[in-house]
Amino acid sequence: METYQTRAARIMQRINTLAGISEDAHGVTRTFGTAAFLAGRDLVQTWMEAAGLAVRTDGIGNLRARLVSQNPQAKTFVLASHIDTVVNAGKFDGPLGVLLGLDLLETLVKQQVNLPFHVELIAFSDEEGVRFHTTYLGSKVVAGSFDRSLLEKKDAAGISLAQAIAAMGGNTQSLANEAIASHDWLGYFEAHIEQGPVLYERNIPVALVTAIAGQQRVELTWQGMAGHAGTVPMDMRQDALAGAAEFVLAAEQFALARKTEVVATVGKLGVSNSASNVIPGEVTCSLDLRSADAGQLAAAYEALREQAEAIAHRRNLGLSWNLIQQTAPVACDAEMNKLLAEAIAASGYEVVSLVSGAGHDAVPISAVSPATMLFIRCFKGISHNPLEDVELDDLAAALAVADRFLTLLFTQFQTH
Amino acid sequence: METYQTRAARIMQRINTLAGISEDAHGVTRTFGTAAFLAGRDLVQTWMEAAGLAVRTDGIGNLRARLVSQNPQAKTFVLASHIDTVVNAGKFDGPLGVLLGLDLLETLVKQQVNLPFHVELIAFSDEEGVRFHTTYLGSKVVAGSFDRSLLEKKDAAGISLAQAIAAMGGNTQSLANEAIASHDWLGYFEAHIEQGPVLYERNIPVALVTAIAGQQRVELTWQGMAGHAGTVPMDMRQDALAGAAEFVLAAEQFALARKTEVVATVGKLGVSNSASNVIPGEVTCSLDLRSADAGQLAAAYEALREQAEAIAHRRNLGLSWNLIQQTAPVACDAEMNKLLAEAIAASGYEVVSLVSGAGHDAVPISAVSPATMLFIRCFKGISHNPLEDVELDDLAAALAVADRFLTLLFTQFQTH
Repeated sequence: METYQTRAARIMQRINTLAGISEDAHGVTRTFGTAAFLAGRDLVQTWMEAAGLAVRTDGIGNLRARLVSQNPQAKTFVLASHIDTVVNAGKFDGPLGVLLGLDLLETLVKQQVNLPFHVELIAFSDEEGVRFHTTYLGSKVVAGSFDRSLLEKKDAAGISLAQAIAAMGGNTQSLANEAIASHDWLGYFEAHIEQGPVLYERNIPVALVTAIAGQQRVELTWQGMAGHAGTVPMDMRQDALAGAAEFVLAAEQFALARKTEVVATVGKLGVSNSASNVIPGEVTCSLDLRSADAGQLAAAYEALREQAEAIAHRRNLGLSWNLIQQTAPVACDAEMNKLLAEAIAASGYEVVSLVSGAGHDAVPISAVSPATMLFIRCFKGISHNPLEDVELDDLAAALAVADRFLTLLFTQFQTH
Repeated sequence: METYQTRAARIMQRINTLAGISEDAHGVTRTFGTAAFLAGRDLVQTWMEAAGLAVRTDGIGNLRARLVSQNPQAKTFVLASHIDTVVNAGKFDGPLGVLLGLDLLETLVKQQVNLPFHVELIAFSDEEGVRFHTTYLGSKVVAGSFDRSLLEKKDAAGISLAQAIAAMGGNTQSLANEAIASHDWLGYFEAHIEQGPVLYERNIPVALVTAIAGQQRVELTWQGMAGHAGTVPMDMRQDALAGAAEFVLAAEQFALARKTEVVATVGKLGVSNSASNVIPGEVTCSLDLRSADAGQLAAAYEALREQAEAIAHRRNLGLSWNLIQQTAPVACDAEMNKLLAEAIAASGYEVVSLVSGAGHDAVPISAVSPATMLFIRCFKGISHNPLEDVELDDLAAALAVADRFLTLLFTQFQTH
């Protein structure tokens, strides 16, 4: 039998080869439906077929490889991640989960395992949502939650999603039929790089994910009074930037005091008609709030809104507070996580539980199936960046854990 | 004799008429050397000539009207302000001082006053520096501090200052000869709107100016680490915006605690590659520091640099601190100010002393002559804006004070 190191090296080689297929010469960019995306998908399909899997491309362009159980009542267990990327991406975000899953299925085929349930490997066609500004196109179709009004959305070139699907040989008519029916889902497993620095800082190769954070995105506008930097005395000013600065620090302090529960980020901040000798009259900034706990998220939102209003009131500033976007937190399945924790411990690693602050295909899937995720350490937590990197040893560790997790699943369902 | 109200109404009418001459149809824009500037200057010249004054245009395009004393040893007392404007300016910034001065000279002519010294009224051609990004062109020539290397500066259209002077009928060769020699200066008086809210808030029509603040302009860059807003825990962040926000508040607090001595403004702040879901990795901001006291200005500069460095150190951020520009504070002449205070009190107004946070033509002149300035209340302190406004009553008050100030000067020099 091959060692996990040998298998991990093959996965790494495939990740590197796939990363060579890109819309631009230097980076890694494969957004939904582009020539580079299709070439990358074709390559993954040849690997799937070479592994002895029957592969089909569904209506939205997902690759779906299925290993069928001989039990006619069997449900389906899905291993998946995505093969589209952001612009100027890293190599691992998405492909790691697909190619690790392929290795697991390849091994099942080689070992002629008698499956107690169907196993499906899916390479989702769109998770990042770069081209049509909408995430999870691939997994929403599989979850049965695809909204057909999205077909009218247009990319920057004016091409609609419906046209893009047709151009890549997909089928907008079949989308509703591509879903795995609710009663057919046994479970969902996704391996993914952490995209954060916790495992890197703690020197641990893998973690299980307990939840995917919900998010509230707010746009704030602070209205003060522009004035001459030399002539308006300090105590007569209505400085919109000073108000916004206070809010930036208030959001940071609030989240620092609840650092296992909430993260808060002001990522954008702009001063209107700014000049070094003009007191800022108007400032717009963003607030990104995330938490795995819906109650905490709502409480943070209210508390920071109150703080913003108090700052504006004290400084005699106008304030507009607009909720731009919100998604609810998603919990991973407790039973699945128990098995995953057992697999991590049995593989000799400390069992670390993380909340995912980033969204994943597991979000739409969790509405119809028990879902779990395995996070893999990445270099300094860097992601969506060409510097994204994963150690071979960590890939081998993830493979060992995932292998053991599948074995535990088989055991559990064979004894049922 | 005409009342100050009647005279103020004529000044106001001239200010309004001059404001009708602009580069653009809607606002007031007359930048150095443009057709609108020349048309405006021609109009002011006709008024000067109609008042019985001999007027010449000097090499840099200043209008200079002179009333000669019969005393051959007499020195020259200058009344002046500027007739160029910023883009989309108000009506009063500059023209008020010129047209108030014109009214004073017109009255001297009518009254056939026997002058103990020469009186020169100057309409400076460029104070704002909009076109060539350099201020005080007109008054520097009169002060003898014009730097000939400026002649090579180019405007946005690629026209050099030398070419612009030639095109408006000026003379770059005569510039050195246009200066009033150091030993010829008796004094300098400039009436100007406050451009700040102090008189408006205190409900007082005029103030004397004790000094024009010095300025230090700094550009700061805060270098942190960009990261995913959802995946990097709060205590592992190097948020460049949070550092800059702390500095914005530190500068504000520092100046608030010394509010009669220093003003501090962060007017510009930009986040590089900003997105609502990305922790800011780099932020650039400005700092504008002003004080009438050179020691206070230097101390503020050092204190805020130390605070910035402490913030950067505590937050593990990189910081670059670049001094972009500095000008020294200028004190108005104590003797002149004593007379001006006397004139204000005798006119029935509370004597208020202000520091000018904005620069004025009095800055270059004060290097060669005792100088003083009279500030006039403007609506809410608004300036460099079409909303700039002055009450007729305040113009009358300024005229009464200036008239009395001249009378006091005459008395003083006649008795010498």
